[in-house]
Amino acid sequence: MTKRKICVVVTARPSYARVRTMLHAIQMHESLELQLVLAGSALLDKYGDVGPIAEKDGFVISERIYNLLSGAAPTSMAKTTGLAIMELATAFQNLKPDIVVTIADRFETIATSIAASYQNIPLAHIQGGEVTGSIDEKVRHANTKFADLHLVASELAKQRVLKMGEHAASILNTGCPSMDIARAVIESPAIDFDPTQKYGGVGAEIAPKGQYIVVMQHAVTTEDTHARKQIEETIRAVNALDMPTFWFWPNADLGGESISSGLRHHREEYDLHKTRFFKNMEPEDFLRLVKNSACLIGNSSVGIRECAFLGVPVVNIGSRQTSRERGQNVVDCGHDADEIKAQILKQIAHGHYASEPIYGDGHAGKKAADALANFVLKFHKTLAY
Amino acid sequence: MTKRKICVVVTARPSYARVRTMLHAIQMHESLELQLVLAGSALLDKYGDVGPIAEKDGFVISERIYNLLSGAAPTSMAKTTGLAIMELATAFQNLKPDIVVTIADRFETIATSIAASYQNIPLAHIQGGEVTGSIDEKVRHANTKFADLHLVASELAKQRVLKMGEHAASILNTGCPSMDIARAVIESPAIDFDPTQKYGGVGAEIAPKGQYIVVMQHAVTTEDTHARKQIEETIRAVNALDMPTFWFWPNADLGGESISSGLRHHREEYDLHKTRFFKNMEPEDFLRLVKNSACLIGNSSVGIRECAFLGVPVVNIGSRQTSRERGQNVVDCGHDADEIKAQILKQIAHGHYASEPIYGDGHAGKKAADALANFVLKFHKTLAY
Amino acid sequence: MTKRKICVVVTARPSYARVRTMLHAIQMHESLELQLVLAGSALLDKYGDVGPIAEKDGFVISERIYNLLSGAAPTSMAKTTGLAIMELATAFQNLKPDIVVTIADRFETIATSIAASYQNIPLAHIQGGEVTGSIDEKVRHANTKFADLHLVASELAKQRVLKMGEHAASILNTGCPSMDIARAVIESPAIDFDPTQKYGGVGAEIAPKGQYIVVMQHAVTTEDTHARKQIEETIRAVNALDMPTFWFWPNADLGGESISSGLRHHREEYDLHKTRFFKNMEPEDFLRLVKNSACLIGNSSVGIRECAFLGVPVVNIGSRQTSRERGQNVVDCGHDADEIKAQILKQIAHGHYASEPIYGDGHAGKKAADALANFVLKFHKTLAY
Amino acid sequence: MTKRKICVVVTARPSYARVRTMLHAIQMHESLELQLVLAGSALLDKYGDVGPIAEKDGFVISERIYNLLSGAAPTSMAKTTGLAIMELATAFQNLKPDIVVTIADRFETIATSIAASYQNIPLAHIQGGEVTGSIDEKVRHANTKFADLHLVASELAKQRVLKMGEHAASILNTGCPSMDIARAVIESPAIDFDPTQKYGGVGAEIAPKGQYIVVMQHAVTTEDTHARKQIEETIRAVNALDMPTFWFWPNADLGGESISSGLRHHREEYDLHKTRFFKNMEPEDFLRLVKNSACLIGNSSVGIRECAFLGVPVVNIGSRQTSRERGQNVVDCGHDADEIKAQILKQIAHGHYASEPIYGDGHAGKKAADALANFVLKFHKTLAY
Repeated sequence: MTKRKICVVVTARPSYARVRTMLHAIQMHESLELQLVLAGSALLDKYGDVGPIAEKDGFVISERIYNLLSGAAPTSMAKTTGLAIMELATAFQNLKPDIVVTIADRFETIATSIAASYQNIPLAHIQGGEVTGSIDEKVRHANTKFADLHLVASELAKQRVLKMGEHAASILNTGCPSMDIARAVIESPAIDFDPTQKYGGVGAEIAPKGQYIVVMQHAVTTEDTHARKQIEETIRAVNALDMPTFWFWPNADLGGESISSGLRHHREEYDLHKTRFFKNMEPEDFLRLVKNSACLIGNSSVGIRECAFLGVPVVNIGSRQTSRERGQNVVDCGHDADEIKAQILKQIAHGHYASEPIYGDGHAGKKAADALANFVLKFHKTLAY
Repeated sequence: MTKRKICVVVTARPSYARVRTMLHAIQMHESLELQLVLAGSALLDKYGDVGPIAEKDGFVISERIYNLLSGAAPTSMAKTTGLAIMELATAFQNLKPDIVVTIADRFETIATSIAASYQNIPLAHIQGGEVTGSIDEKVRHANTKFADLHLVASELAKQRVLKMGEHAASILNTGCPSMDIARAVIESPAIDFDPTQKYGGVGAEIAPKGQYIVVMQHAVTTEDTHARKQIEETIRAVNALDMPTFWFWPNADLGGESISSGLRHHREEYDLHKTRFFKNMEPEDFLRLVKNSACLIGNSSVGIRECAFLGVPVVNIGSRQTSRERGQNVVDCGHDADEIKAQILKQIAHGHYASEPIYGDGHAGKKAADALANFVLKFHKTLAY
Repeated sequence: MTKRKICVVVTARPSYARVRTMLHAIQMHESLELQLVLAGSALLDKYGDVGPIAEKDGFVISERIYNLLSGAAPTSMAKTTGLAIMELATAFQNLKPDIVVTIADRFETIATSIAASYQNIPLAHIQGGEVTGSIDEKVRHANTKFADLHLVASELAKQRVLKMGEHAASILNTGCPSMDIARAVIESPAIDFDPTQKYGGVGAEIAPKGQYIVVMQHAVTTEDTHARKQIEETIRAVNALDMPTFWFWPNADLGGESISSGLRHHREEYDLHKTRFFKNMEPEDFLRLVKNSACLIGNSSVGIRECAFLGVPVVNIGSRQTSRERGQNVVDCGHDADEIKAQILKQIAHGHYASEPIYGDGHAGKKAADALANFVLKFHKTLAY
Repeated sequence: MTKRKICVVVTARPSYARVRTMLHAIQMHESLELQLVLAGSALLDKYGDVGPIAEKDGFVISERIYNLLSGAAPTSMAKTTGLAIMELATAFQNLKPDIVVTIADRFETIATSIAASYQNIPLAHIQGGEVTGSIDEKVRHANTKFADLHLVASELAKQRVLKMGEHAASILNTGCPSMDIARAVIESPAIDFDPTQKYGGVGAEIAPKGQYIVVMQHAVTTEDTHARKQIEETIRAVNALDMPTFWFWPNADLGGESISSGLRHHREEYDLHKTRFFKNMEPEDFLRLVKNSACLIGNSSVGIRECAFLGVPVVNIGSRQTSRERGQNVVDCGHDADEIKAQILKQIAHGHYASEPIYGDGHAGKKAADALANFVLKFHKTLAY
């Protein structure tokens, strides 16, 4: 029997982490063949090249698409997307997938949707129906409008995709594949690696023992001109706390360079002297680091999703996660050093929360693979109303 | 007072015809400045270069974007779109519009949406909320998901955009601007030009007098491999009718080359010997030609929209206009020469229908310009539910 | 033994014709494997899609590159070249050739040189060292500067490449592969096909018997704004001659559209009523048609090269072939209808000329294949002085 | 009088430094208007964004072209060049320059040549006729073949351009504009700035006093897979010397990432503990730093050109500068730590050399501006032989 070819396009390190269990489930599925395409910032050393990680995880990279333009031009996101469409069109022509899978809401993910749809290849979308209030939300819902199959991560997301006019039969709530990893971490939470030894990083010599915090703050693309100021408030708060801190560099979004340069500046000025900076870690390692931390700070979706399941206290800063479903574990605050510090202290005092499975029960990868195998191939649809 | 800059991107000849009254209304508006960008097939001689037409209509072309790849590759639509994004990104950076306007649902229109949205420029979309069941419908709704302001053409369209999660305050039913021209044609329907003299064309010497028909059949992109067979059925029906026929070449969609080549083949074989072929005409001329015809045949949206208002009988062939709101004047039929011929004869026998203002009352241009002037600028939104 | 992979990039119909015997010789060579890449106007129906022709000739197309932008923008040549580089880079990465071959001097050929050189793939150049005085000449010599192996078509060309600083060991005078076909035609000159039946074409019903002429006039890219006027002089001359005429459409160069549109205009005005227009013919057919004609008119290199070998009288119009080595068979004239007509009549009166093997003895394909097999692979060079 | 518009495209930080005096001379010239375009790595923070520097120097940036693709793909150089052509084509169309100037031999410089030539804009080339034996040399001579005016930097270079078939009247030996800065430094050599304070940098706290060395080693693109090993030999030699060292990061060439990552690795391992790393400095500052150093080490052209004029001892490592004219001040050595160390010690022992004006007398900028003003505009040429 010819296996159905499933082409998953990963455009960023966090997306890879999120869907890895689904990739494994596809690879193991008796009627599916996995085609893994890496593109955009997923290939950059700066943000953590997914290539070697994925190969170590047992995957073959079918194609590498270098479409990310260097430099902080206002046109970068658009041009990078345009290039991605052109390059992915060639890749799909060569790979001839039966289904293309696009993930979530990064600006480049629409390139996958367009390149597939315009070649009449059925499109599946992971994580539709979530709301964030930024350009990402526009991209996410546009992906939904191109997609023929919707693998969503929560019941609320399913309801939203349905309301947007998609047919009920094309929507499946798998839960989020990243919860599959969180489930493994909950079952075995002890940190079994030395972060510095395994991942290098730069900055202070610290260990993931006792009370420490984790920071991950990305740029908000609609507020890119404020990115430097915003990160400086967080830096000041963390400086004032004077606790061991694991800090992760931001992703490649518009404004990301300003954040990186703010961090480098302060580091060279000997601020953040109890902080060590990391590009990224393997998902299990990262989630174990988070699971054992006193608090996660920043605006990463990990705080909203995995941390609800893990029960880790989160201080969510600014507008990036606005409107996302969240658990008891999250407190929101603005870009103000004093407020950030106060909220962190409050969360540390509170300690860990009860686990809430808002984004799935940890079996998403298998459910998604089954859905891809059973989907009746089509690339034609119309509004349900 | 600084005028608000409204950048309208036109990617096809029919789109230009449709929005021309809106362009005039923007140009005449005391608080608006028009930036007209022509792109894609709008610039090709083959499909009727909009440039000279627009200049004759009194507009200045701010930018010409040549993004259409030659040749019938399966990747053409995707790559042409990718290129359009890259080129439009540069154009918007130079033009610095306050609002960008994207029109309807052609595959290239998503490029306008992306290039604008990814540079944080508010986006208005013309003609959202309509359904067609083809790749165009995916594109149309994806445009809706990027747009901050929706200028729709019918009440039903408005309801659909609302259901898709857009905020009521951002949706205005202006009617379709192309009805503004149809209104002028209804008020003064006599044909005041000689088609051959004014537009050249190739083929038989025929005049728009007595009983004649008009044919306009485009490729259905999801059925591109059938395009040649589909057009041959229509050719056989028209041959059998043996009536004076004004035939318009198809647009640049995937499959359009097959249709053109089918037409050329039959013309060179001396079929279609009462037929004259035209690339395009000025909208008023075209609608007067249609208004005075015995029947419009093919799958153009003109049959569904303008002809409802004009009361012209239409034989709508195949799936391209599936699910669009339609009036009494339209009968549908499949790609079968005998059936097509029979339906044409039936429609000719019936004669003209009463006017139905489904797509507007002929004042859309002014309403759209006012909406663009009054829109509170923003490029940030979230689902209404 | 692993065969050496030779990737030949063909960007135009005439280039294909020129190198076809070389392609066969590569394919038949025991230590070579042919990779044939078609790009640019070589794929367009309008200029004669090389794809089906090459397949009929027994070649497999390794890759089709659609890089030609539609429309007559001043930036078209540059952007089409830029796109070609990007697409060829991907193709070479996938094909992993041992040597890439670029042909002659069309603007797109530099894309092949750059895409190969920047990936450290050894580059061979066909037809270096010739002079024409147009942008093509700049491109040709720039190709020479990128190339590691030079397969030139005449002794004079060899001397020029040597003078430009290339090492003697890297230059081989194979003669031009197109002479291989001319040799076959000389050996068997009778026309064994019906042009209309085999190639269609449009226009008058004429046969290749008795006294007829052949016209092929391309745009001169540095004089593109004069292209329309230039072709009209030729049209007037041909009209005045009133002889059966086989006319070939121009290539895709800047200004080519103006020539085509001039031809179409006059044809529709019932000028050129003894003329039939063809897109292209198979090389043997074309050369037999030329061989049996009374005169070749225009500015095609066929007049300069093949016709010297075939002994066919040529009226070479304008600057396009300036400075190329030529035989007794060529008379030059300006863009003036009266002069053109007079020179044609003079050439017809003169009749055929003796054969001159300026561009080779008809064994170029085999010599080139051997050179590609024996070349010591390298992509590193420095001036010889 | 309308001033002649001279568009200079700068694609790298060192190129800017080299031509700055020419830019000033163009800006001050009564019949010239400067259009400065920055592209590629000239805009990257990582390699020293030329934008703010040029603005501080009193220039207006006419256009910024972001064409550099991130990531270490084998196709990067080609694709970056393809993109540059597409973007520069648009820029030239908007800027409408009378002459475009391309500089030297970086891979992206051919994009400038093509974009200008294919739009019939006369092209001037700075620094033709030099030999290096790498891909750069191919690019340099290809630029010569596109250029209509040659502004070369030495008598030997002039002879080579002439031999390559360029017309004598189109070649002028201005000397290299970078010598104009060296002349100023010779006239006033004292270091008047604190490197760390002015430029930041990372690494050891060192001062430009007493005996110190300067290192600048770029990747050799034809040897990119050896880049990491090559830099490690240099690192070992410098470690062994144990002297204060000013080290400059490599440029964006293929292999540059390997060098940077090698340097970062060793720095984090606490090697190079007397070394401070800089991205770049203003040219005068940089040349003063070099002028006062005991020795310049690496493979930068500064060692060959400016240092001949400055009389600074140079240890030139590897093949990157092979065949370039050089003075008494240069000793060559291979990629071997022991040899490198020995040569450095020998050069330090020798001390400074007498000044040799091989690349000009320090008035190149003015001579170049005059040549651009006096050039008879044309974009048409043929071989001189």
